[in-house]
Amino acid sequence: MGLTLSRPDLISLAAGFTDNEFLPVRETREIVRELLSNPGKGRPTLQYGVTPGDAPLRRLTAERLRRLDGMGDGSAALDPRQVLISGGSQQMLYMTTEALCDPDDIVLVEDPTYFVYLGILQSHGIRARGVQVDRDGLDLDHLSKTLEQLKRSGAIGRVKMLYVVSYFHNPTGLTMSLEKKRAALTLLRGYERAAGHPIYLLEDAAYRELRFQGEDVPSALAIRGAAGRVVYAGTYSKPFATGIRVGFGVLPEPLLTAVTRIKGNHDFGTSNLAQKILARALSGGVYDAHLERLRRRYALKSAAMLKAFETHMPSAVDWWTPDGGLYFWVRLPPGLAAGRNSRVFQEAVRAGVLYVPGELCYAADPSRPIPVNEMRVSFGGAKLADIPEGVARLGRVLTRMVRRT
Amino acid sequence: MGLTLSRPDLISLAAGFTDNEFLPVRETREIVRELLSNPGKGRPTLQYGVTPGDAPLRRLTAERLRRLDGMGDGSAALDPRQVLISGGSQQMLYMTTEALCDPDDIVLVEDPTYFVYLGILQSHGIRARGVQVDRDGLDLDHLSKTLEQLKRSGAIGRVKMLYVVSYFHNPTGLTMSLEKKRAALTLLRGYERAAGHPIYLLEDAAYRELRFQGEDVPSALAIRGAAGRVVYAGTYSKPFATGIRVGFGVLPEPLLTAVTRIKGNHDFGTSNLAQKILARALSGGVYDAHLERLRRRYALKSAAMLKAFETHMPSAVDWWTPDGGLYFWVRLPPGLAAGRNSRVFQEAVRAGVLYVPGELCYAADPSRPIPVNEMRVSFGGAKLADIPEGVARLGRVLTRMVRRT
Repeated sequence: MGLTLSRPDLISLAAGFTDNEFLPVRETREIVRELLSNPGKGRPTLQYGVTPGDAPLRRLTAERLRRLDGMGDGSAALDPRQVLISGGSQQMLYMTTEALCDPDDIVLVEDPTYFVYLGILQSHGIRARGVQVDRDGLDLDHLSKTLEQLKRSGAIGRVKMLYVVSYFHNPTGLTMSLEKKRAALTLLRGYERAAGHPIYLLEDAAYRELRFQGEDVPSALAIRGAAGRVVYAGTYSKPFATGIRVGFGVLPEPLLTAVTRIKGNHDFGTSNLAQKILARALSGGVYDAHLERLRRRYALKSAAMLKAFETHMPSAVDWWTPDGGLYFWVRLPPGLAAGRNSRVFQEAVRAGVLYVPGELCYAADPSRPIPVNEMRVSFGGAKLADIPEGVARLGRVLTRMVRRT
Repeated sequence: MGLTLSRPDLISLAAGFTDNEFLPVRETREIVRELLSNPGKGRPTLQYGVTPGDAPLRRLTAERLRRLDGMGDGSAALDPRQVLISGGSQQMLYMTTEALCDPDDIVLVEDPTYFVYLGILQSHGIRARGVQVDRDGLDLDHLSKTLEQLKRSGAIGRVKMLYVVSYFHNPTGLTMSLEKKRAALTLLRGYERAAGHPIYLLEDAAYRELRFQGEDVPSALAIRGAAGRVVYAGTYSKPFATGIRVGFGVLPEPLLTAVTRIKGNHDFGTSNLAQKILARALSGGVYDAHLERLRRRYALKSAAMLKAFETHMPSAVDWWTPDGGLYFWVRLPPGLAAGRNSRVFQEAVRAGVLYVPGELCYAADPSRPIPVNEMRVSFGGAKLADIPEGVARLGRVLTRMVRRT
């Protein structure tokens, strides 16, 4: 980020920002004008709320999830009281991990996974254990083998959960099918007796609403009998405005009570102003209208990036094209490193383009080497007009480097 | 809080809310209108910022503290880079404690202290050790004895900091003098060799700007040579709008780096919209103008409460009158309990008035009994017109109870 600020010529395909030109400036201004139009309405907006969050926002969130997951509107499967509002979904990941894990515990993660989450684990002395992914998403065989091996080694009692970024996965862009979620939950359940406690699925759905192609997949909340083991973390930041940090979790007891207590200790509740802006945007249709524009925008940007890849990338490089979210996952030939200290990274910076080295997204797991020949390339933050040039710069570097190796 | 909502006849002298009728509704509306008046200005407001916070807000915060503490404007003693913006000062307390303490460590606290902070300690398995306070604030002799005793018992290596609410203390309303801060720091310093690490002073200045009488006291940041041992936690929530949760910390290295990393894991930065509202309010004079109105308001409410105490309280009850903040500290005769399960509390609820039982503000410290005959009575959240009636209700209950015992 520092580099981006100091080199205005640089095209950043690194940051997972939302499109700067598509932030709801006018919409937010109008909503705040209305919220604060008179003291009677304005005061509750500027006063403390309650720790679990604004009641209308919790209700709207539950209704929205029920709709997305195809549950009936009167469905008891998702009670607004299970919804806890947070300062972005990041805080929900943090608090859930804090509530569930002790130092030296184990969290299963996709290999690769969201690198900031690895930082959370590391800062608490929690071990991350990677489960392989391929083009189809989480490798269930590898999950099964990993669990079996943890059981044999006597470490299964330390396993507290499986963390997955289930929609347009950060960094690979993959979406996890409902069948995989169901199978993963069944597998986890099978080791609970050995573990001596529940093993949860933490479903990070941060990118869910950013789909621009294909059909939404139900979340693990929709799986019958799974509700007691699923923590769902969602956000309104990326689909609406990253400057208004509002996320949420759906949690089963006793986790709900534990995480609400932690939320009380963190900040006893997310900014009421931010929450009421989102509640108003959701109830008045502003959120959905904005999301539609955003989806069309990301479809365009993703298509522009794909076309630029096809034009500029040497044939030895391949990539996974997403149906939503912000990221392409790019793989160089095995011998060609793309890490922070690699020649490729340095030459890319020199050529004026930034990406996220894939190696940062792998847990420190001594049981396998960390792949170094991958990169996360984002079309989210860059200007549409800059994407072809950014990819062209990267393509030139890679063409040169592939030729050399 | 649940009780307050379900019993509209109840007068709450419990909550530390700010005055609902004095929230800056119009001011905030105007600021947001301006911030979002056009896309060029509006986009940075609605986009992600950087983890340590909005640069102008950090600069304004450093300048404001330099002014409050009588440091020169060019003073190197307070660099904006030492300022970290947080989601209310509560988050800063949480993160600092997380960064410094391991389970079983010891934090020295005022006895009584801010009860939510005790919750933070407890949730991390950190032990709180109470240091007595009297009308003059922290009892330095008792601090000295406590440190000496911890050294003798071999526990001094677990002591990481002293936490003080230094302005209009929650719950007692007391303000700590500069001399006491200096003496406390000197005492702590004297045990660092035995401890084998620095012992910090965490100065919670949440109520500092809510003074309505007398002169401001410099913070511990102003003490020469102490900067490396002081963490200062402040907030813009209570002085401006509790619904816009923006607080800040001033931290020395290496704590600054550690806490910034934790902030990145919590939420990688407080809502940019909230930060930019505050920056604009500070730079445009709106904050100071609002604070002036608020101070006059609290002066009125405090005076109304004092008058009501004088009128309605039986002579066996005494209280400490604050020069700022939100709280009176009320002490019943030693035999008369005011705790959650006490007759006094139950009768007060029945009579339609709520207070915070003082017992909640004491650490679980087996070396002394927890006093049960105290109450925190707040004039912050109640309507001015309700204060006399609320105190009259409490006075009637206490008069009856005193007579009976």
